[in-house]
Amino acid sequence: MFAAIKEQHKGVDVCINNAGLAHPEPLINGKTSGWRNMMDVNILGLCICTREAYQSMKERNVDDGHIININSICGHCVIPHADTHFYSATKYAVTALTEGLRQELRAENKHIRATSISPTLVETEFTLRLYSNNPDIAAYALEAIDISSAVTYVLSAPPHVQIGDIQLRGTEEVS
Amino acid sequence: MFAAIKEQHKGVDVCINNAGLAHPEPLINGKTSGWRNMMDVNILGLCICTREAYQSMKERNVDDGHIININSICGHCVIPHADTHFYSATKYAVTALTEGLRQELRAENKHIRATSISPTLVETEFTLRLYSNNPDIAAYALEAIDISSAVTYVLSAPPHVQIGDIQLRGTEEVS
Amino acid sequence: MFAAIKEQHKGVDVCINNAGLAHPEPLINGKTSGWRNMMDVNILGLCICTREAYQSMKERNVDDGHIININSICGHCVIPHADTHFYSATKYAVTALTEGLRQELRAENKHIRATSISPTLVETEFTLRLYSNNPDIAAYALEAIDISSAVTYVLSAPPHVQIGDIQLRGTEEVS
Amino acid sequence: MFAAIKEQHKGVDVCINNAGLAHPEPLINGKTSGWRNMMDVNILGLCICTREAYQSMKERNVDDGHIININSICGHCVIPHADTHFYSATKYAVTALTEGLRQELRAENKHIRATSISPTLVETEFTLRLYSNNPDIAAYALEAIDISSAVTYVLSAPPHVQIGDIQLRGTEEVS
Repeated sequence: MFAAIKEQHKGVDVCINNAGLAHPEPLINGKTSGWRNMMDVNILGLCICTREAYQSMKERNVDDGHIININSICGHCVIPHADTHFYSATKYAVTALTEGLRQELRAENKHIRATSISPTLVETEFTLRLYSNNPDIAAYALEAIDISSAVTYVLSAPPHVQIGDIQLRGTEEVS
Repeated sequence: MFAAIKEQHKGVDVCINNAGLAHPEPLINGKTSGWRNMMDVNILGLCICTREAYQSMKERNVDDGHIININSICGHCVIPHADTHFYSATKYAVTALTEGLRQELRAENKHIRATSISPTLVETEFTLRLYSNNPDIAAYALEAIDISSAVTYVLSAPPHVQIGDIQLRGTEEVS
Repeated sequence: MFAAIKEQHKGVDVCINNAGLAHPEPLINGKTSGWRNMMDVNILGLCICTREAYQSMKERNVDDGHIININSICGHCVIPHADTHFYSATKYAVTALTEGLRQELRAENKHIRATSISPTLVETEFTLRLYSNNPDIAAYALEAIDISSAVTYVLSAPPHVQIGDIQLRGTEEVS
Repeated sequence: MFAAIKEQHKGVDVCINNAGLAHPEPLINGKTSGWRNMMDVNILGLCICTREAYQSMKERNVDDGHIININSICGHCVIPHADTHFYSATKYAVTALTEGLRQELRAENKHIRATSISPTLVETEFTLRLYSNNPDIAAYALEAIDISSAVTYVLSAPPHVQIGDIQLRGTEEVS
């Protein structure tokens, strides 16, 4: 993918790690394959894209790039819903990865920025599948545009401002 | 103050708790009076303004109000600088107060929103006094307008979006 | 108090900051006096005792002292119970104070240790008063001896082991 | 492994997830294979053992079992050392997994307990390899017996006491 980007667009200046998925596999009886799939996409995929984006910026001396991880409220607290527990673990990892990346970029004297955006449920296929039998939860879900507004805000901040994390919930959300 | 606001403007719809101060009083040898002053302004003052703003909204049936606490990165992690330790404790309290307020507003079925904005050092009198002998730290300080941009973003989010916390650092910040 | 201790026992080697109280004063409508009282006891009292204990150790060259803060689970997460929200803010402060103290002791090259113990409700007058109308919660409360066992464990750790925090809940606790 | 345990010992009553490893692979230029190996051992291996141990307890109606995850200080904060960043992400996941497990056990009305023990560096092959060129860090490392003392304390707590997390550092540790 990054080779194609390089050929067509020369490289990556902004990388938004948005891919992520959740399978309803509790910790006490979940399937290993579902857990592995969440790890591969939510953690490993994000790390590979981050590394390739950084290398692309570095080889072109891009110093104002931005890597944005779409995290989750579940990356900051564990909600009492067994189907989300392993997913939450992958998002806790994303919280650490964003801060670790910020530190590494700083140590390299780069002005590339690292940000995570941590929404509650967003009304997408993802949520509708996970909570198909719980319309109440869907009621306060955010819309995709709310996340893109956060992305716009983050990208438009002046170069000296490093937004570390934004947490977004539904105003009517209970937990 | 709130009586004067009521007389002149009918009431408060948006409350931004921005007052805050830090005295360089370490935990092992600081002065009680300095600690008390930080508690009074950073915690108690914020709580009183929050309560009065909420009551003002409630008595006028304002359901789209917003209470924004200007927190600090120090409200999320303790930096190795003794002069900021007690200050950091008051800001940890603000982190808890913002989340507690969100829960109480939700329990009252209000759509009033509670947000905290957690910047690193901002280039104000506050910082210049605290770090007068450390120009390096001042070098990456944020500007006041960076915080007001965050406030603008928070206030302009659609009513169903509750932004819980935004963390802002200087891009060149090390710690 | 510390003068009397000095006269009778020469000084303090171990300081256990156990005093703490909660008044049921929510954030949206609580009384300022109740909030202030919690701040004074849970934060300021703890800081004064800590400073005096440290100074007592320092003037007698005690390098194996220990300062233990009895914190709370509420110092780590905000539970959905309005009566505990301000209390929780004071305990978040204690979390920061314990880590700040650890850093200051380290910077002084002392081997005095700082620890916080963070239990859920303990079956004392404190809990019975706060939850008098909620026997379910009292059902899983810890007993005072469970906390003293944690204190014993912390104090008996070898000198090179600094236990930062222990979190204890009731096994039957839900939240 | 669990089949052999079943045959020889009937089942598992206490599961201590101690396996864990770190490869020095920073986020900006690390190898995918090193990252995957850390994920497989530190997250997936721990989850599989946890699930099998729980199922073993369940089928024999063991209600006083204990699952202990050997976490790390790196599961709670990200230290400024690029070689540990991915490792830290896997340990943040462990922090979430321990709390998620506690919630699931509670929802099943079990009295099986879930605990994490979060030490700083322990003087083992693991540390010596990772910090081979940094003897200062090794100087304050904990010893294996310090962790086993924590395990003993956790296991010997009365059945109604659920110790969630214990954080241990070296007393001389700086960061």
